[in-house]
Amino acid sequence: METTVKIFDTTLRDGTQGEGVSLSVEDKLKIAQKLDSLGVSYIEGGWPGSNNKDIEFFIRVKELKLSNAKITAFGSTRRKDSLAENDPNLNRILEVGVQAAAIFGKSWDFQVHTAIQTTLEENLNMIYDSVRYLKSKGLEVIYDAEHFFDGYKSNPEYALATIRKAEAAGADWIALCDTNGGSLPHEVSKIVTAVRESVNTPIGIHAHNDCELGVANSIAAVMAGASQVQGTINGYGERCGNANLVSIIPNLQLKLKYHLISSEQLASLSSVARYVSEIANMHMPVNQPYVGSAAFAHKGGIHVSAILRDSSTYEHITPELVGNKQRVLVSELAGQSNLVFKAQELGLDFDTTNSQTKQLIEQIKQMEHQGYQFEGADATLELLMRNAYGKLEEIFSLESFKIMVAKSVNQPVSTEAIVKVKVHGETIYNAAEGNGPVNALDNALRKCLLQYYPGIQDMHLSDYKVRVLDDKDATAGKVRVLIESSDFDSSWSTVGVSENIIEASWHALVDSMRYALLTQTRAAHQPEEHRERIGLVNH
Amino acid sequence: METTVKIFDTTLRDGTQGEGVSLSVEDKLKIAQKLDSLGVSYIEGGWPGSNNKDIEFFIRVKELKLSNAKITAFGSTRRKDSLAENDPNLNRILEVGVQAAAIFGKSWDFQVHTAIQTTLEENLNMIYDSVRYLKSKGLEVIYDAEHFFDGYKSNPEYALATIRKAEAAGADWIALCDTNGGSLPHEVSKIVTAVRESVNTPIGIHAHNDCELGVANSIAAVMAGASQVQGTINGYGERCGNANLVSIIPNLQLKLKYHLISSEQLASLSSVARYVSEIANMHMPVNQPYVGSAAFAHKGGIHVSAILRDSSTYEHITPELVGNKQRVLVSELAGQSNLVFKAQELGLDFDTTNSQTKQLIEQIKQMEHQGYQFEGADATLELLMRNAYGKLEEIFSLESFKIMVAKSVNQPVSTEAIVKVKVHGETIYNAAEGNGPVNALDNALRKCLLQYYPGIQDMHLSDYKVRVLDDKDATAGKVRVLIESSDFDSSWSTVGVSENIIEASWHALVDSMRYALLTQTRAAHQPEEHRERIGLVNH
Repeated sequence: METTVKIFDTTLRDGTQGEGVSLSVEDKLKIAQKLDSLGVSYIEGGWPGSNNKDIEFFIRVKELKLSNAKITAFGSTRRKDSLAENDPNLNRILEVGVQAAAIFGKSWDFQVHTAIQTTLEENLNMIYDSVRYLKSKGLEVIYDAEHFFDGYKSNPEYALATIRKAEAAGADWIALCDTNGGSLPHEVSKIVTAVRESVNTPIGIHAHNDCELGVANSIAAVMAGASQVQGTINGYGERCGNANLVSIIPNLQLKLKYHLISSEQLASLSSVARYVSEIANMHMPVNQPYVGSAAFAHKGGIHVSAILRDSSTYEHITPELVGNKQRVLVSELAGQSNLVFKAQELGLDFDTTNSQTKQLIEQIKQMEHQGYQFEGADATLELLMRNAYGKLEEIFSLESFKIMVAKSVNQPVSTEAIVKVKVHGETIYNAAEGNGPVNALDNALRKCLLQYYPGIQDMHLSDYKVRVLDDKDATAGKVRVLIESSDFDSSWSTVGVSENIIEASWHALVDSMRYALLTQTRAAHQPEEHRERIGLVNH
Repeated sequence: METTVKIFDTTLRDGTQGEGVSLSVEDKLKIAQKLDSLGVSYIEGGWPGSNNKDIEFFIRVKELKLSNAKITAFGSTRRKDSLAENDPNLNRILEVGVQAAAIFGKSWDFQVHTAIQTTLEENLNMIYDSVRYLKSKGLEVIYDAEHFFDGYKSNPEYALATIRKAEAAGADWIALCDTNGGSLPHEVSKIVTAVRESVNTPIGIHAHNDCELGVANSIAAVMAGASQVQGTINGYGERCGNANLVSIIPNLQLKLKYHLISSEQLASLSSVARYVSEIANMHMPVNQPYVGSAAFAHKGGIHVSAILRDSSTYEHITPELVGNKQRVLVSELAGQSNLVFKAQELGLDFDTTNSQTKQLIEQIKQMEHQGYQFEGADATLELLMRNAYGKLEEIFSLESFKIMVAKSVNQPVSTEAIVKVKVHGETIYNAAEGNGPVNALDNALRKCLLQYYPGIQDMHLSDYKVRVLDDKDATAGKVRVLIESSDFDSSWSTVGVSENIIEASWHALVDSMRYALLTQTRAAHQPEEHRERIGLVNH
């Protein structure tokens, strides 16, 4: 029999405490819809007692008609020496009209003395009164026991007394928080087991990642009997982040056979993770477990030849289960088997005896010798391969470009680019300013292409890396430029090499746009449903 | 009594399998030195049987005279149906002249059949013969049991038989590999315990991060009796990376009281992690556990006021233990101890009560806020400090520069720079071509300075790195440029930050020349002996 575990998502509340994460109300509404369709049970939307943006979210989210998730408001227990009924914080939760509330209180004797400076007895009353008040108004109440693990280690009797108070007041869940993220899995396991012997209320786990153990601690808690997991998409959150739901969900469901969401929902995991990272404007690490673009990427030649025989030789799960896919990276460490694999993926007739194939291999070898590296530049490799088999339409061609950078003392630097390209036989000439030479080129080239390819608007460059290839003389040496680009649900990388950083950047930039337009052009021949999925239909 | 755990670092071998990680021989040598000073016991430098770059590393690393770490070469067991003595792979390990070898063999019956396609019996012979051969030549041998955990789950008797063969052949260590990264901590714990009952050889753990459990699995193995931990700095490695030593080391040493390195070495952890990320040109996540710049950062509100009372309220360890620091967005005094140290080194009167010092601290804070980072740019920091105390002669000042880059189809790109500077009150105007805009600037500036400072000829730029600081829009974001320069035998690093890559490069370039001329000017007034020490006498 499958045991069910409920997902409590706090991306919109604790996640926004992460450095660099900042979400508008619109952003939060978009993410809430994605979370609902992923199948989470609770969406913690914010702290209505703390700021007005969160209040607006709670009001507007009601229009969304979510199918599954309960919108949850966060807050603290009442202030010391006062009545719950008069507590502005608690009343704000009631005013915004949510189904569930998560309120936190102190479990750690040291914190009671140091942080809120009251007696242990008054803290117990604060917990009881607050839970009781919200329950009396008909809300589902999740009691967040802040610093529970540190509290238990310091004074187990008192820590247990706090949650027994929450239970006595009618809390629906008791969530044990490893607020500072300093606990280890064996401690979590032991303490959750002790808690289960002491209370009957269902237990949740709220872990942080300060020891890089957020996922492990969440799993340890569930194996010890917790039935709710709190966390955020991609592990966003204060300091080192919250426990990463994107890893916890497949670990629990695929490896430990708990039931959290349907398999269709699980197969949307990669796209949800990428979507949230786009909305939050956070770079998604290529090596992110389960969902990163390198999570099932193989570089070593030995691994690749084994994978061609049976992919379970070097893959712990089938990538499609979480909506990801296998990729083979072509690099100096790899043999020809990597190319064979890539060609199969693209549906090209890669027969090592035909002349196109030989030419392609020769070309790739020569480019690698020049300093190209394709392992981080799949899109450039794909363009090369399509081109070799005559399957690549020329989207535009360069006539010329010029860049001027000027700086005078005490003046800001100015950068302009002029680009002349041929598109569909016509010569287009345009100029633009930019924050730097590559940005100016990017802007001018976009202006040239926009009238023919409006889809170019949907893509942007998300990362730009420069590496000097030999260090004899750095600014005169060859450089390799890697550009990562994204649109709403995919990202791709391109590479350029030259002795001139501008020329290298130009190659990578042009490949990025060619690739974007190629995918968009192919998508245009797909049924509407597919185009909608890849974000090409404008509503 | 403290239990000792040995660190086996494979950043230079398995780490380079990570997407985007590519290290030159020079890079590898630099990192090897850092790893040695961090206190790792084994540095796995590469696979001599697989490529020539790795062979060069093994030859050149001997010149470094490392104090602690054993240089280790990687390879596989002999080929099937052949003699170990004739195996080119094994002989290559012997030829490069290392103290230790790590060789991997198959533990999983399925892999024996599928990947190497031989009998279970021949696989056992391959393991025995290979370990035996290397032991007979006097090497320390670490036997890497590939896919051990998957193998054990499939056929425990056979998996145990493979490592018993390695033991019988004299292996010094048996490292259990979770090659596909798909195991969970409770499985690792159970299997390591079973292995310990079956062999007497010391056990190592080699975990991957595919379930975001690489750190947890390594800890589980150590708690079950493993005494060697394999991993990489920052968790670089194939797919989702290897187990991250930067988190494992403090978890084991600070939380579980194992002994791995000295407390001074532990306090260098943050700077080693940053150094390796700079050399590898990989972005270091701000939220990286223990060492990220946000790992102990606190946003305003409740947490900050509690922290001002007692920092253990929201911090799981004292950040200084791992060389990191607390960041609170209000009035931080962190980093000042580094400045005091640096000032002593430079013989400056760094008294925190005087106004010059206050101004300097303010200036550095503001620059850090803009995106400057001085860890990798000592020379820029020294210039700033000398300037604050009026100890910096203005060598030249900028009037203006202009750069033109032009490219036409089928023509090489042309780059010219015009520079106007003031030197000793005179305006100098010069122009030069270059391989790129920064090289053209460098050339033009040198032409301006040469007549006044002929010593400028002796220096050159040896590395040039660009990093985008925020990924909203990569080519429009702020960039940080790091330039490394060298003369006959010293090298120094400078940094520039701007939204414009050219302006950022200009700042770093100018600082590099100012620093070179400053040292040369000072050296000219020193006795010959000192000039020799700082590398200004040409032998």
